[in-house]
Amino acid sequence: MDRKIAVVLAGCGYLDGSEIYETTLTLLRLDQLKMPYQCFAPDIDQHDVMDHVTGEPVEGETRNVLRESARLARGKIQPLDELDPDAFDAIIIPGGFGAAKNLCDFAITGDSITILPLLVEKVRPFYEANKPIGMMCIAPVMVPKMLNGSIPVTIGDDASIAGAISAMGGLHRSCSVDNIVIDHEHKVVTTPAYLLAENLDDAARGIFKLVEKIGDMLR
Amino acid sequence: MDRKIAVVLAGCGYLDGSEIYETTLTLLRLDQLKMPYQCFAPDIDQHDVMDHVTGEPVEGETRNVLRESARLARGKIQPLDELDPDAFDAIIIPGGFGAAKNLCDFAITGDSITILPLLVEKVRPFYEANKPIGMMCIAPVMVPKMLNGSIPVTIGDDASIAGAISAMGGLHRSCSVDNIVIDHEHKVVTTPAYLLAENLDDAARGIFKLVEKIGDMLR
Repeated sequence: MDRKIAVVLAGCGYLDGSEIYETTLTLLRLDQLKMPYQCFAPDIDQHDVMDHVTGEPVEGETRNVLRESARLARGKIQPLDELDPDAFDAIIIPGGFGAAKNLCDFAITGDSITILPLLVEKVRPFYEANKPIGMMCIAPVMVPKMLNGSIPVTIGDDASIAGAISAMGGLHRSCSVDNIVIDHEHKVVTTPAYLLAENLDDAARGIFKLVEKIGDMLR
Repeated sequence: MDRKIAVVLAGCGYLDGSEIYETTLTLLRLDQLKMPYQCFAPDIDQHDVMDHVTGEPVEGETRNVLRESARLARGKIQPLDELDPDAFDAIIIPGGFGAAKNLCDFAITGDSITILPLLVEKVRPFYEANKPIGMMCIAPVMVPKMLNGSIPVTIGDDASIAGAISAMGGLHRSCSVDNIVIDHEHKVVTTPAYLLAENLDDAARGIFKLVEKIGDMLR
């Protein structure tokens, strides 16, 4: 298969960037299925820098989302504004707090949501062209506002986040860590990943299914 | 299996820390095989901070190896000086430039090698107790000086690094990315990983074999 997948990153580290394991597992499955991909990230400052030992913010330190995301992509990354949706067949957004702090502000506001305009501009064309969209962990909270509130998505079984999705006009479906929620009509696939995963084996089950389903949709 | 594995990290990012994919694939296979592990990293400054977009060093920035390694371990990490070798059954050291800049200075000197004394102090007891030791990518360059020059290791097929291993009194064996080199007597297992891997599928083949072999040695 030579259908090309865009992967949008949001930093490197689950507390302030893209979830490292979710991203790596996504790229592993893409490589195993011989689905070519290109990583992108916005060239903006991170919302914050978190100390991953203590779980506390590091005061006075600033990091750039594109530069940190490049760690996760081994340097093979492009600024998000260079993503040409016409050149890609599907798009995947892993989770981690970066998705909810740098790509949108859900982790900061907790209920309402403002999404990075550049992200909306780049993802909407996939939706409008009925190309598959995969989102995992917390990223699906962006679906009602970015795409369409009638698309069922999952963030696992967290009542508070599910409630926020409903409050934003969206539809939430509970889902186990090893499974995916699929909207066949709009080709949107979501999985809870590290909102439920207790280890990498857990996370891999749902994430591999998500990537495989997107591959199936492209056949 | 409830044999416990220590994993030693050296930062987060292939140019100045532990190779992210190698580490994640190692932990994935350990989780899949239900082999419990604990990550450790030295609480020291990184040798440098690299911009993973440009591949150039970032002047004037300092990062701590333990704090950055915590990103790769989702916070579940301990300072290397707290590693009690008696409490673990095997030890694994992933690669990345961090292994050759922060755990030793091979990437800086290019031929001779000085190894972080704390690392030697923690790894030697595994060797002396004949417990399995796994090292990947560039990390095996530490074997002749840290363990024993008669132990065959691989870093893939790079003539210059293989030559340096010989010059340090060690034995190098060429090996493909999907394979491992095993010293059964001393229970040392090595694989080329990203010294040869062109994608995650490649890397996973050798790394999974390394983890499985260490599991076999513990049965």
